[in-house]
Amino acid sequence: MKRIALLLVAAAILAGVIAFTEPASLDADDSAAPLYVTTIPPGYRDWRLISVSHEAGKLNSIGAVLGNDVAIKAYREGKLPYPDGTIIAALHYGHVPSAENNKVFGQAQSFVPGPPTNIQFMVKDSAKYAATGGWGFATFVDGKPAAAASMKSCFPCHNQTKATDLVFTRYAP
Amino acid sequence: MKRIALLLVAAAILAGVIAFTEPASLDADDSAAPLYVTTIPPGYRDWRLISVSHEAGKLNSIGAVLGNDVAIKAYREGKLPYPDGTIIAALHYGHVPSAENNKVFGQAQSFVPGPPTNIQFMVKDSAKYAATGGWGFATFVDGKPAAAASMKSCFPCHNQTKATDLVFTRYAP
Repeated sequence: MKRIALLLVAAAILAGVIAFTEPASLDADDSAAPLYVTTIPPGYRDWRLISVSHEAGKLNSIGAVLGNDVAIKAYREGKLPYPDGTIIAALHYGHVPSAENNKVFGQAQSFVPGPPTNIQFMVKDSAKYAATGGWGFATFVDGKPAAAASMKSCFPCHNQTKATDLVFTRYAP
Repeated sequence: MKRIALLLVAAAILAGVIAFTEPASLDADDSAAPLYVTTIPPGYRDWRLISVSHEAGKLNSIGAVLGNDVAIKAYREGKLPYPDGTIIAALHYGHVPSAENNKVFGQAQSFVPGPPTNIQFMVKDSAKYAATGGWGFATFVDGKPAAAASMKSCFPCHNQTKATDLVFTRYAP
């Protein structure tokens, strides 16, 4: 019984680990070129932290950048280019003042995430996304992929950071 | 052989899971009251994301707030007070402009983590830290605990957010 129980636990954990580390579904719009990622990689909200970001001005966002296991390993080892299977997620929120925190601090200093603005992904698959530097780009707003037209600027912009394999975000220690 | 291999894999995974979820060592300075946490909870950099933050003004920091498994479960279930074993980590960095990003964007808008300024923890142990609302507070700078004198303001400040069990940070979806 004990062994069966352990096996069951092991199987459950393995299933969890596999679900956690399974490369995301790489569904894309096959009718268009370049290809974009149109399915949200499962489990991304459980991924580990790469870094944080704040975009002022028009974007006015605060964000967290998370990576799947392949991404975290590559970041920590500092190896470039990122291997196939790397997925980087950028969770963006409005950059809003916290009245609640500021009241306690006695001054206007604290900004927290407001409502989510979008979630963006970069999925590395050097064959599938060869036309865009090996990366598939994705933007989801309210769980839905952004219009393909709005995605055209992803690659040319990211392509300006070739020294880091098209990735802007550095690892925060 | 197959079963042995599976058992070995299961054992290795279980060991990893246990190591990952093991409550942090709650070493504290027993000679002082209130008690502060003086040992960095192991593995905190692998914890999942609770939220992000930006403190303007004198602090001028950008941060990530991570939680151990107990913390993440409690946050997601929205249950208060946080159970014993909850650990919340706030990783703070200087809030610095990214010349590299701004060059690509064509305008000054992008802020990224500079060097780490400190790491702060809140460890829930309602018996041990009864004098400070059940929470042990910690600040580490360059891996070393901050002077106890500098820690005296933690509790009175956090104690002003009683409605959320002394925790300022909300869960970012």
